[in-house]
Amino acid sequence: MNKELNVSNLEQRDQTAASERAQDHVQHDRLQSVIAELAAFGGRSDGGVSRETLTDNDLQARRYLIDLARSRGCSVTIDDCANLFFRRPGTSDLPPVLTGSHADTQPVGGKLDGAYGVLAGLEVIAALNDAGIETLRPVEVVAWTNEEGCRFGPGAMGSSAFVDPSCLPAYRNSVDAKGVRFGDALDLALQAVPDVPRRPMAEPMSACVELHIEQGPVLERALVSLGVVTGIQSVRWYRIQVTGTAGHAGTMPMGERVDAMAAAVGLAQQLYAYQAVEAGEKLRLTLGRWQVSPNSINTIPGAVEFTVDVRCVDEQVLVQFEAALNRITRAYSWAGQIEFESMFSRPPTHFPAAMLELIERACTRACSSASLAAPLRMTSGAFHDAMYLAEHCPTAMIFVPSKGGVSHNAAEETAPEELFLGVQALAYAVTSLANA
Amino acid sequence: MNKELNVSNLEQRDQTAASERAQDHVQHDRLQSVIAELAAFGGRSDGGVSRETLTDNDLQARRYLIDLARSRGCSVTIDDCANLFFRRPGTSDLPPVLTGSHADTQPVGGKLDGAYGVLAGLEVIAALNDAGIETLRPVEVVAWTNEEGCRFGPGAMGSSAFVDPSCLPAYRNSVDAKGVRFGDALDLALQAVPDVPRRPMAEPMSACVELHIEQGPVLERALVSLGVVTGIQSVRWYRIQVTGTAGHAGTMPMGERVDAMAAAVGLAQQLYAYQAVEAGEKLRLTLGRWQVSPNSINTIPGAVEFTVDVRCVDEQVLVQFEAALNRITRAYSWAGQIEFESMFSRPPTHFPAAMLELIERACTRACSSASLAAPLRMTSGAFHDAMYLAEHCPTAMIFVPSKGGVSHNAAEETAPEELFLGVQALAYAVTSLANA
Repeated sequence: MNKELNVSNLEQRDQTAASERAQDHVQHDRLQSVIAELAAFGGRSDGGVSRETLTDNDLQARRYLIDLARSRGCSVTIDDCANLFFRRPGTSDLPPVLTGSHADTQPVGGKLDGAYGVLAGLEVIAALNDAGIETLRPVEVVAWTNEEGCRFGPGAMGSSAFVDPSCLPAYRNSVDAKGVRFGDALDLALQAVPDVPRRPMAEPMSACVELHIEQGPVLERALVSLGVVTGIQSVRWYRIQVTGTAGHAGTMPMGERVDAMAAAVGLAQQLYAYQAVEAGEKLRLTLGRWQVSPNSINTIPGAVEFTVDVRCVDEQVLVQFEAALNRITRAYSWAGQIEFESMFSRPPTHFPAAMLELIERACTRACSSASLAAPLRMTSGAFHDAMYLAEHCPTAMIFVPSKGGVSHNAAEETAPEELFLGVQALAYAVTSLANA
Repeated sequence: MNKELNVSNLEQRDQTAASERAQDHVQHDRLQSVIAELAAFGGRSDGGVSRETLTDNDLQARRYLIDLARSRGCSVTIDDCANLFFRRPGTSDLPPVLTGSHADTQPVGGKLDGAYGVLAGLEVIAALNDAGIETLRPVEVVAWTNEEGCRFGPGAMGSSAFVDPSCLPAYRNSVDAKGVRFGDALDLALQAVPDVPRRPMAEPMSACVELHIEQGPVLERALVSLGVVTGIQSVRWYRIQVTGTAGHAGTMPMGERVDAMAAAVGLAQQLYAYQAVEAGEKLRLTLGRWQVSPNSINTIPGAVEFTVDVRCVDEQVLVQFEAALNRITRAYSWAGQIEFESMFSRPPTHFPAAMLELIERACTRACSSASLAAPLRMTSGAFHDAMYLAEHCPTAMIFVPSKGGVSHNAAEETAPEELFLGVQALAYAVTSLANA
């Protein structure tokens, strides 16, 4: 953690009115117009956006962002993972305050996921300019490369490589469905911006705040407009393989069968029951991908594989789940050969208390000045670039509601007033951090 | 049913020693050699056979059978569905006794499924020739077209079209995976045998006996070498469609989910429980084909479709199952939109008692002369051409064991001694029927 920022003193240091003035200079219409302009790169007739990382659409969007940032007085730099940084200088050369998100989308995504956080950062720059505020620390807005991970796996390549550049060589070998290497696409993206100077990776940051849509229904259901994200859930992925004996559906007596699907269904039922009875809302359980062999109406399934995705902000809950998974699979050994293996595991992220207090103050002022309910403290169920930045500097996130919890979908939507509120809170928080 | 055969008088009429002499002239080695020769058409290095209907392998196998039948004194005819008939004349011109099966296989099948029944019929002809037996009725051996139904659906086209020629026009429009019409493949198969005269379909038959491998483990488990098939199970196929709401595995709280897989698993579990608790061995239940959407590790399944295959010789059991399926799906309506539709239904086939008595006598003599356990009365879990012939004339089936119950598999196997016993029983039954 970067020592130069004394987060415990934020409250005292934040007595200036600068944060409030920055918040009050955020402009609703200016925000909406750039959201619409950026959405045109990869824009679809259904209102969605198709802008996978490092595609032509993405490269054109990057050029749009560079021009927009320069028009707001920012200097622009790019690192070896093609992460774009837009810098507003401070009165000192202390490590900057970082905000932003990503501009790439799912194959069919919405206009807000990621893009909103980048444009919100540039709106904060514009607000600081309009308010004539000079900050102690520089403010940098970042557009991370390949957060979505749909074209090249894994996701969050840009932010994770920024924090740990030793990841980059392996990322460069990632290949998309058409056989294109990430490294080659990266080099083309870098060559496409010869006017943008290269910068080192892993540079010190004093703090980071990411503003993002929730991608879930929690805020909407609670009738709350802003969320203070306390952390990001831990996740574990497993592959469960049930091996039975394929056979003729008509000729094999029930007593003679080793039916892989009967065993898999029993197993799955016990996992759902464990979630409902033992864990409850703490544990999120998804059995999302199933492969059945031979998958024929009149053949007893000989093999069934399914995946388990479990998430909780309290890793102990996942430790207990894994123990239960062990018990349950052992209990089903009579029903065929059952194996499970861990595919992926990520510990939870907890944002620092002092950062949460600042974010809560920022959100509270934005909500109260609009006579709206106080912000809600909540965890993020999805991964975000902030998850990696939290390993690098004091980090926090702000959520705005997603209508119906819809995400990774052309129908993704957030009320313009709530998008405006989110940027107001971000402006307050970034200004406070930049003066701390 | 054909009235000319008085099956109730079989016992009296069967006092002649002809049936026993025919049985005693069946030759083990002659049978084995033609099984090996026919298996060469589409033969595989793993011992299996790939001879889907009307492929080049199948057309060459048909030519082999025509030449073999003629070498045993048979006249050969073919009908509009390319069913091949090999006829040994009787002393009268009464409707013939029919035996045989099919020569086509699954994409990867064994050398016995179907082929054994055809070659057994030709071995009976050879035995009758060697014994110098003249029968009252002609004996015809048939090789039905497309019993397997894997290249062109549905299965048992040849036998069902023979019994009801009005099916043929629709069958001709069936298309295989490469876009070939069954009708066109049929015309090529007919043109390939210009030396074989065409015959009308649906000609009267006095009786039909089909000899087939069991394709299940019942006889092997019972240490019995021959099975008297009392009937063929009724079958019903259903498609169950569960519609939920796809969502992000991380961001959607459990309480907000409409998880199509959670509902499908609960439904499936109740169906398995119904079979085990309410129906037991009477009901055979297979949930064989599953389709999950979007089928992604970290997305809540939005739609799950699975198939239900239920079978029982007592149709009432299936009527009760369908009522339970109704109750269970209604009970799950809270878990999303659940619909089920019937895809296919076939009532049970019960072979006539007098035919079963004759088959039992024939099998008993074969088994006892080899000092083996008495034959077992059993039902067939699989469909066979005999199912359709039962609508046309008095019909019955004989089963020989399948090692390990393995079928539709290169590993399909039956002991040569048991294949020999099966043909002995067939020779006895066919001769008795041909003199009745």
